[in-house]
Order: sequence, then C-alpha cells, then structure tokens
Amino acid sequence: MAGFNVRTVLVTGANRGIGLELVKQLLEKSSPPEWVFATCRDPEGERAQQLKNLVSRHPNLVIVALEATDPASIKAAATRVEEHLKGSGLNLLINNAAIGGNGTLESETLDDMSLVYTTNVTGPLLVSQAFLPLLKKAAQGSNQKGLSCSKAAIVNMSSEAGSIQNVFIWHLGQAIAYRCSKAALNMLTKCQSLGYEGDGILSIAVHPGWVQTDMGSFMAPVTVDASVRGILNVLPTLSEKDNGAFVSWEGKVLPW
Amino acid sequence: MAGFNVRTVLVTGANRGIGLELVKQLLEKSSPPEWVFATCRDPEGERAQQLKNLVSRHPNLVIVALEATDPASIKAAATRVEEHLKGSGLNLLINNAAIGGNGTLESETLDDMSLVYTTNVTGPLLVSQAFLPLLKKAAQGSNQKGLSCSKAAIVNMSSEAGSIQNVFIWHLGQAIAYRCSKAALNMLTKCQSLGYEGDGILSIAVHPGWVQTDMGSFMAPVTVDASVRGILNVLPTLSEKDNGAFVSWEGKVLPW
Repeated sequence: MAGFNVRTVLVTGANRGIGLELVKQLLEKSSPPEWVFATCRDPEGERAQQLKNLVSRHPNLVIVALEATDPASIKAAATRVEEHLKGSGLNLLINNAAIGGNGTLESETLDDMSLVYTTNVTGPLLVSQAFLPLLKKAAQGSNQKGLSCSKAAIVNMSSEAGSIQNVFIWHLGQAIAYRCSKAALNMLTKCQSLGYEGDGILSIAVHPGWVQTDMGSFMAPVTVDASVRGILNVLPTLSEKDNGAFVSWEGKVLPW
Repeated sequence: MAGFNVRTVLVTGANRGIGLELVKQLLEKSSPPEWVFATCRDPEGERAQQLKNLVSRHPNLVIVALEATDPASIKAAATRVEEHLKGSGLNLLINNAAIGGNGTLESETLDDMSLVYTTNVTGPLLVSQAFLPLLKKAAQGSNQKGLSCSKAAIVNMSSEAGSIQNVFIWHLGQAIAYRCSKAALNMLTKCQSLGYEGDGILSIAVHPGWVQTDMGSFMAPVTVDASVRGILNVLPTLSEKDNGAFVSWEGKVLPW
C-alpha cells in the first residue's frame, strides 16, 4: 500500500461493517489521506457511535449524513463535502452502502425488490452523479498519467453473489433481490467506466469476499480486517487496463 | 419449428411489437397451440386493437389483462388462465412486457430507475411466481424426458444491451436504467434455472435482436417478423443443456 497516496476519500455506509473498517484502516495508514469523508444515514444515531469515537483521534475524519435512497440527502452531502474541500477535488468515491435480504424465488416481493435495488444500484448511481464534479476536479488537478484510485476513481462495492456466471453460495441462500441488484451494479460500473474514462476517472466493481459482518453473518470465512486489508492492497494496483473490471479483495478478476 | 408442439403459451406485453408478432406467428403455425394467452395492460384500450382483431379468426386466442407492476393484477390474470385451462398446465411462459428509456449516467433519475426495474425485472419475477403452479402442472403432466419449451419453460425477453461484457450499441445510447434492468433480468433467469430445474422447468433469457419496434426505433436492422421467426426457430432446439443460458434470436449463446 506504499504507493497509495490518495488525498481525499469518501466512503458511504461507513458506520459499520466493511465501510467502518475502510475508514479505520485509511486513517491508520502511515501517511493517511488529508480528508476521509465517512457517510451514514444518521450520524447522530446510536449506530454511528463507533464512527464518532474515531473523530477525536482523527481530525481529518469528517462524518456526513447521506441516505443513498434520497436524492436531496445525496445533494446536500455533496455540497457539504465541496465546502470542506475548498476548491480541491475528491480522489476516491467508495460506494459501499448496501442492504442484503434473503428472499427466495417464491417469497420475494415487489417492495423488497424495489428497496434493495434503490439502495444498492440507484444509490451508487445518484451518489456518483452528485460527486462527479469533485471527481472531475481531482482528475483535472492531477499530474498522473492514465487512471488510478489515487487520481480519481469510483469503487462500487459489489459481490460475487452478483456474478451471473458463478452464482456464489447459492446453496446457502437464494437472495434474489440482492443478486439481481449486484448484477445490475456491475452493469452500472461497466457503464461508468465507458462514460467517465474520458474524464480521467477509473470505475471498478469490487467483491469484498464473504465477510463476517451483520450482512455476511458469523458463518462467513473472511474477517472484516482481512477483507479491507485486501481491498486496500488491491486498489493501488489498478490502472486504466482494469477500468470497468470486477475484482475481488484478493485481486482476482471475476466473471460477470 | 416442426417439432415445436407446445400446447399452451402465455405472452406478456402482447399488444404490440415482438409480443404481438409472437402471438401472430404462434397462431399461424400449421399446428397451432391449443391456447395462446396474450396479456396486455388494457385489453379494452386502443393500443390493444390489433390483438383484438386476431380473436375473430383465432378462437384459441384469449386476451387477458395483466399489468406487470401490479401484484394483484398478476394474480387475477393467473386465476383467469387457470380457469380457462380446466386442470391442464401452462407449457410456455414468455415474459416479454418491458419498457425502454434512454437516460444517461448524468440524467438518469430515481423514478426512472425504479419504474424500469419494476417493469423489466420484478414484473417477470412476480409473473413467474403466479404462473409457477401451472408450469409445474405442465411439467408433471408431460411424458417428455429432460427440459424443453414444449414441456414447461420460462422465457425472459432480455437484450444484448444487458450484456455487461458486450454493452451492445453503447455509442447509440447509454440507456442506463434499461441496461441495468436487463443485466438483473439475466441474473433472475439464472436463478430461476437453478431453482426450477428440479420441477422440470427450463429457464432461458433471449436477446431478440435490435428490432424495428417502437422501442427499437426505425434505425434497427432486424424486422419484427425476422426476429420472431428466429426466436420460434430457436426455442424448440433448447434443452436441459441450455438451462439458464442467454441466447440470441439467431441461436448464439451470448456472454453475461
């Protein structure tokens, strides 16, 4: 991770699980980012306590309210981050906020399909729209050639459960709404890679492993610490040749 | 198409475009199905006139109201079809109803993302749920081995625009909501193939080509007639080895 000198990062869904650990490990780097923006739905709520505990030790951590299913909340968050950056750009946007669900082919409902899609796909789309001017600014202000996560990048936290080829751990749960949303998020990532390449922005879908979070459950084989350490080792290695790819926390390219 | 003796078929979105042409060509076969159920939102409306004109010549055509974004409408349609079948099953369910849209990465909205997803993905899921008992009945009542479209099958009308690998005709339109919905529909098809294989039901995603319909526009290279003729030639060739695949109207397997 020596070469990963990203100046400004934003992580959504940062109050727990993979999002919280990403924030922690970014802050604990020997040369941490200038600013780490950590968003969650309710920064004043009980569930944001762990995130709030970090602020006293890390003055470069800024907690921002962002509800990924609410366009007005997303715009307000982008305005707040822009004010903080005082004319600088945002290098790395990590769309991590997501929900799970374990509906089957027979039990899945319209409401569940809609909520999971809005949170897991439309959310990352709208967040990327709102932060695009700041990502473009970072790319324009960089003297790096090509594409990289330290220049300007959108990282969408996907899942191998969204690989249509692999249908990861189907025997443990159909999770129809979740799988469909992650396949769609992979398509969004591919579209972003085509649409934003000319702006100097890298777009990547990441599978964090099957991780011991509230969503992944205690049965998961990968610790949150190991998953995030893996992701933060992989991100600095990515360049224009990886634009639009689907990579795992171990750096493997996964099939769609 | 000689061997394609499917007894009962249902086509959603059958009042125009590919859906209407599927109904026409099925009815015009030398040995047509015993029943063709053609669904559309508003059978009494002006836009269903061409479908209604077919009824006088084809007493085996039954028009059924079905709004794919309304669970109650879907259930009512399934009840109506079940009454018509008088104890028989449904062999072939063609989830064809879909909407387009041409939003870009920057213009796409929450409302458009939701409406396109509900129509193009949740609709086929809920329709498949509702007609599952009739599909199972057809499979149980068949003496055919393996899987086939004439025994019991779900055919989801997808699009190569939903291929994350190919991102078909990106230069002509980003169509973000549409592409994401079709990638998700491909995932749904794969899940259905895993979930329903044991019930004797084949599940297939079909790319109809870029077709001269209202959705495809006049620029499209494939006529509706040629697309549907192609699809009806391909369906009878599919078996258990194709379960869960993504095939084109020309019989080619497409990448996810």
